[in-house]
Amino acid sequence: MMAWLQAVFVCVLLLGPVFAAQADEVPLSEASQECMDCHVSITPGIVADWQRSRHARISPAMGLKAEESARRISVDQVPAELADVAVGCAECHTARADAHGDTFEHNGYEVHLVVSPGDCATCHPVEAGQYDQNLMARAYDNLKNNPLYQVQEKSIIDRPDFAHGKMAYAPANDLTRAETCYACHGTKIDIVGTELRDTDLGEMEFPRLSGWPNQGVGRMNPDGSRGSCTACHTRHGFALEMARKPHTCKQCHVGPDVPAYKVYSASKHGNIYSSMSRHFDFNAVPWTVGRDFTAPTCATCHISMLADGDGNELVGRSHQMTDRLPWRLFGLIYAHPQPKSPDTTVIRNTVGISAPTDFKGNFATAYLIDEEEMARRTATMQAVCLSCHGRAWVGGHFQRLDNAIAETNHFVRASTGIMEAIWEAGLARPDNPMDEIIEKKWMDTWLFYGNTIRFASAMAGGGDYGVYAGGRYQLNQRITELEAWYQERNSARKAAPPAE
Amino acid sequence: MMAWLQAVFVCVLLLGPVFAAQADEVPLSEASQECMDCHVSITPGIVADWQRSRHARISPAMGLKAEESARRISVDQVPAELADVAVGCAECHTARADAHGDTFEHNGYEVHLVVSPGDCATCHPVEAGQYDQNLMARAYDNLKNNPLYQVQEKSIIDRPDFAHGKMAYAPANDLTRAETCYACHGTKIDIVGTELRDTDLGEMEFPRLSGWPNQGVGRMNPDGSRGSCTACHTRHGFALEMARKPHTCKQCHVGPDVPAYKVYSASKHGNIYSSMSRHFDFNAVPWTVGRDFTAPTCATCHISMLADGDGNELVGRSHQMTDRLPWRLFGLIYAHPQPKSPDTTVIRNTVGISAPTDFKGNFATAYLIDEEEMARRTATMQAVCLSCHGRAWVGGHFQRLDNAIAETNHFVRASTGIMEAIWEAGLARPDNPMDEIIEKKWMDTWLFYGNTIRFASAMAGGGDYGVYAGGRYQLNQRITELEAWYQERNSARKAAPPAE
Amino acid sequence: MMAWLQAVFVCVLLLGPVFAAQADEVPLSEASQECMDCHVSITPGIVADWQRSRHARISPAMGLKAEESARRISVDQVPAELADVAVGCAECHTARADAHGDTFEHNGYEVHLVVSPGDCATCHPVEAGQYDQNLMARAYDNLKNNPLYQVQEKSIIDRPDFAHGKMAYAPANDLTRAETCYACHGTKIDIVGTELRDTDLGEMEFPRLSGWPNQGVGRMNPDGSRGSCTACHTRHGFALEMARKPHTCKQCHVGPDVPAYKVYSASKHGNIYSSMSRHFDFNAVPWTVGRDFTAPTCATCHISMLADGDGNELVGRSHQMTDRLPWRLFGLIYAHPQPKSPDTTVIRNTVGISAPTDFKGNFATAYLIDEEEMARRTATMQAVCLSCHGRAWVGGHFQRLDNAIAETNHFVRASTGIMEAIWEAGLARPDNPMDEIIEKKWMDTWLFYGNTIRFASAMAGGGDYGVYAGGRYQLNQRITELEAWYQERNSARKAAPPAE
Repeated sequence: MMAWLQAVFVCVLLLGPVFAAQADEVPLSEASQECMDCHVSITPGIVADWQRSRHARISPAMGLKAEESARRISVDQVPAELADVAVGCAECHTARADAHGDTFEHNGYEVHLVVSPGDCATCHPVEAGQYDQNLMARAYDNLKNNPLYQVQEKSIIDRPDFAHGKMAYAPANDLTRAETCYACHGTKIDIVGTELRDTDLGEMEFPRLSGWPNQGVGRMNPDGSRGSCTACHTRHGFALEMARKPHTCKQCHVGPDVPAYKVYSASKHGNIYSSMSRHFDFNAVPWTVGRDFTAPTCATCHISMLADGDGNELVGRSHQMTDRLPWRLFGLIYAHPQPKSPDTTVIRNTVGISAPTDFKGNFATAYLIDEEEMARRTATMQAVCLSCHGRAWVGGHFQRLDNAIAETNHFVRASTGIMEAIWEAGLARPDNPMDEIIEKKWMDTWLFYGNTIRFASAMAGGGDYGVYAGGRYQLNQRITELEAWYQERNSARKAAPPAE
Repeated sequence: MMAWLQAVFVCVLLLGPVFAAQADEVPLSEASQECMDCHVSITPGIVADWQRSRHARISPAMGLKAEESARRISVDQVPAELADVAVGCAECHTARADAHGDTFEHNGYEVHLVVSPGDCATCHPVEAGQYDQNLMARAYDNLKNNPLYQVQEKSIIDRPDFAHGKMAYAPANDLTRAETCYACHGTKIDIVGTELRDTDLGEMEFPRLSGWPNQGVGRMNPDGSRGSCTACHTRHGFALEMARKPHTCKQCHVGPDVPAYKVYSASKHGNIYSSMSRHFDFNAVPWTVGRDFTAPTCATCHISMLADGDGNELVGRSHQMTDRLPWRLFGLIYAHPQPKSPDTTVIRNTVGISAPTDFKGNFATAYLIDEEEMARRTATMQAVCLSCHGRAWVGGHFQRLDNAIAETNHFVRASTGIMEAIWEAGLARPDNPMDEIIEKKWMDTWLFYGNTIRFASAMAGGGDYGVYAGGRYQLNQRITELEAWYQERNSARKAAPPAE
Repeated sequence: MMAWLQAVFVCVLLLGPVFAAQADEVPLSEASQECMDCHVSITPGIVADWQRSRHARISPAMGLKAEESARRISVDQVPAELADVAVGCAECHTARADAHGDTFEHNGYEVHLVVSPGDCATCHPVEAGQYDQNLMARAYDNLKNNPLYQVQEKSIIDRPDFAHGKMAYAPANDLTRAETCYACHGTKIDIVGTELRDTDLGEMEFPRLSGWPNQGVGRMNPDGSRGSCTACHTRHGFALEMARKPHTCKQCHVGPDVPAYKVYSASKHGNIYSSMSRHFDFNAVPWTVGRDFTAPTCATCHISMLADGDGNELVGRSHQMTDRLPWRLFGLIYAHPQPKSPDTTVIRNTVGISAPTDFKGNFATAYLIDEEEMARRTATMQAVCLSCHGRAWVGGHFQRLDNAIAETNHFVRASTGIMEAIWEAGLARPDNPMDEIIEKKWMDTWLFYGNTIRFASAMAGGGDYGVYAGGRYQLNQRITELEAWYQERNSARKAAPPAE
């Protein structure tokens, strides 16, 4: 008898956070009830998703009763009118109505479509504040307002026309931009008018938004705030389980430029996650190493507060994801220490360009964190590692990562040296370094292969992604190709009679 | 006490459909029992798989007792001899014995190996009928009997011989063809003789089949029917759970030409599926949005009947998968409105070739659905979207998809324009447009990158697959390469003295 | 009432192996208890992982009481001091202290960091012995001590320097080597000194190891043994569930050279695994076809002992993974019969090189298994297949695989023929066949595309990976590219006036 009772409790443990404690104990506000009355028919999927959420089951006041380490909200008290009701439709979609450019009158309520970090900050101000200091919160600005990155953007999405034996390029339109770079970086959402729609309740007026839908990490919201919490905390369930699973990060981190998910899924950690996570608890706060999980996900290493079995905090929660990151692995064009400010448009390298390194590999030191800060962040990250690994293990791992950063930067220096020779020999035009075929092949070396190798090293997903799957094999092949292209054309150039 | 009882019921809910209601209540037919007596030892895996299936647990008569919206069979009554027994070995493998060219005498029964849609239609005629109108049902014919696609097929699988400094190609053999294009498109299964085998019951005679095994969607069966239900409804469990999960579609939709699975798995929908589907019910009929699932799989959008929480049908079931698809994203060589007839060999483009577009991008309009039908299908698809998304969201999404179709077609027009210039300049031979290296690189632009971008747009799997992972980055690089190749050789051609 | 009781037992069945039978019944040895006292705080993740393991719950003596077919240990008795305690920290980390070069004094115990197959052999000697005869156990030696493979290794990871218009390569350092080829092949772990560390217990001395951490399959351990059981049996849970799931193999088998995981996951078997494995039992011994699982994973076909529903053994367990493999699909440069000895450095091909084939495709027959042995291994593998498939199915499948091996070898012969012509014409230097750009493109044909096609065939993951996803499409394109490169340069060479 005991055995199955035990199993039952295991079930409760496993399934409990999602299904236990049904919503009927927490009242809906009158406004949210009114929303529901129609939307349960109009958008049944949203409503059902929300009904299973913690927001539907736990009022802010109930949430505040938890011990501090177990709390999911970061205020001491919430506005009285929110305290004892579920966090329903109206609580978010009518919050701060005056602040929202997209507010419109809807059945007697001032409703806005785009719920923003500014709204979420009502109960989660610490997280919203940290996030705003995050590189991600500036993903729109940092791309849109950096002339160099705009050259790169245009080299990828510009629209070709071939006529009369010649190619010409025109800028991509806004719809294309919204579903390419800015799908992840975030769009700027503007109110471009209103429209009338026939509904079951008669004709109604709604705002028309440009750049919508979007859930990019640096979205520019109609209330002036930056970012989109639902990039990771997917509406309308907002399940911790989901934000903590690696599939969330995969949405933007799977391509050859940032193959974090691919590398993770082939690493030992990813293997444990894939094989064993049905036994993990992804909803526990604090998140206890060993008891709740036996391998880290992206969130474990980069964001979450972790505790040991006695409830001691091993590392604190942070929504400023660079908090545990000394290096920025993403090559621009070399991997470099993290920028000091989330606004990277202020950076100037040795030749005055807004990039964290120059073509020789010198860092824009004044704009990047110093060694002391790098050491602090390394120590924070290693506190995560050390909860499962000994010092020899962790030391060996980070020594390899440091080596991989130095070595891939060296490889990129070699490929860039070839390009410099090509430009110098007049075999390509240096004014735009990304628009000719040989330049595009050079981009592969630092944008894809260098990055892939570093991600592979960082997550010890070593073998394949460091070598044959977009790693050193391809990097070496491409450098050999660049060099052969240069030598062949340079020889021909020298052999040819001088042009008239 | 209540808490764990609740958990128990959750377990029942989660696990019930597969494990509940064991087989012993539904009798086996005498014939099936006889099959079992031996095959439980000979092929224990098949038998055990079937024993857990709905076919083993529910007789057709029991199935007919369900409410219409919950029924899994689409007849009003089944033949008397099938009504009250499990759908066992004999019920399928001896059905319609005269119709099957592969029928053979086996222990006193007329058995056939290849169970076909014609057999399944005994209880599932509506699904079989819809499927037969599906492009997929013609996947064999449409490839095998289209001269242009045969050129493409040969350009990929033909067998090279390099001798005396020259390359020659010979046709691929049937075994190669069966495991390449026709693995997904379906093989033609022919009876090529019989063979004697030693068995535990002595020497027995069996038919020898060519093109076997195969479960391609357009399989040409020995009974003259087309397709293979087990392509998606994997034998011998035939679990709805499996057909509804995206891994089934991945079997044929993962490569760069049709990267549906890859894009989906990196989309928000795919993220929710990967993170949360352990809480979903994949066996419910009707399939209720929000309650049974909170994110769509492939089947949700393309096939399944969906209901809201009150049991109202939101969209009807269809095994004609194009029913909700206005556009065919798959470029031939441009994306185009869906063909009118599942038999695409009848299509003639502006220059008389059996292709839905010509090289300039003109559609073979007479053979493709018109705008009205496109609007109808768009509305059907949007009915799915609208169960979880508002109109502004859905409108914005489809506006981007329309744009992506137009823009990628424009890109392909540019790459094709370069090829036309190459052919015109005599730098490649236009007679076979797919056999030279520069032509093969051109193929990448419409077969891989254009398709990947459109799939990324369609599933809002935007960022990576639309840009860096086989998207615009590679498309733009390849177009630049084509143009550089052309300019360089065309200049050399003009500079060279005329050939004698 | 019965329904939910049933569900409860299902829960027990599903969750039981991991969570049932808590550790308190099996005593810890005094030494392990002492380890725990500190490490529960120092490395809580490791301790918690172990506490849920079978090693924590079942003493060796208890394990020996199981029926032979259900036993997980392969000794008749274990040393008395180990018999009745949990297999804890000290049981492994102090075992065979004299044999381990990395043994050090730690709180009064002789501890070593690197637990090796030699240690595991205390209770699992049969598995350790089989593994030692495995090609994998020699993965370090076979790569490090083969001059030809060293050329390949260097062609991939050597470090480029471009200066004064010329490229030079220097050897990769040990840190790079450890995280590239040797991440999977295994590093050689040497003791390179000691270091003092401040700990909560004061200053303590620890050995410093080079090549650490590593869990490669051919790791050279400080006790002289080869391999790392934790490559697959991930510490410190050592769950059978994990070793049997395909994610474990993915750690090293996902790249384009050995895309086993990718192909599997797109195959029908992989689809069933992905869709249905939540209903499987991955911990049962013996592993019963149909009852415990309805689709094979990597382990099913290559390692595990399988039984039918009556407990009859269908195929025996083997940790010599080539035991069911007649062919080595991995092209060097052609697919070939498996080597006779796990030490492949002894092989000499027709021209005296240590490779299993020569450039013409002749096998180094004397060093490879003969047809009789190939037939025996084929039969062993087919015994797995036949538990779920009829003979026509299995025969048809293997006929295609044999064809794919022959045909891809033929393709590689064509690409190699072009290379021979290139070398002969002096268009590339044959002394190092892997360092020039055209040679690196030739490598793609046999190292990536040939292998991918064969893996796709072997696992019937046919469609995409055999054609468009690194299969025949890319192979044919690359061969066309090689030939065009040759023809163009060879024509130019002939047309040019002889060099002075």
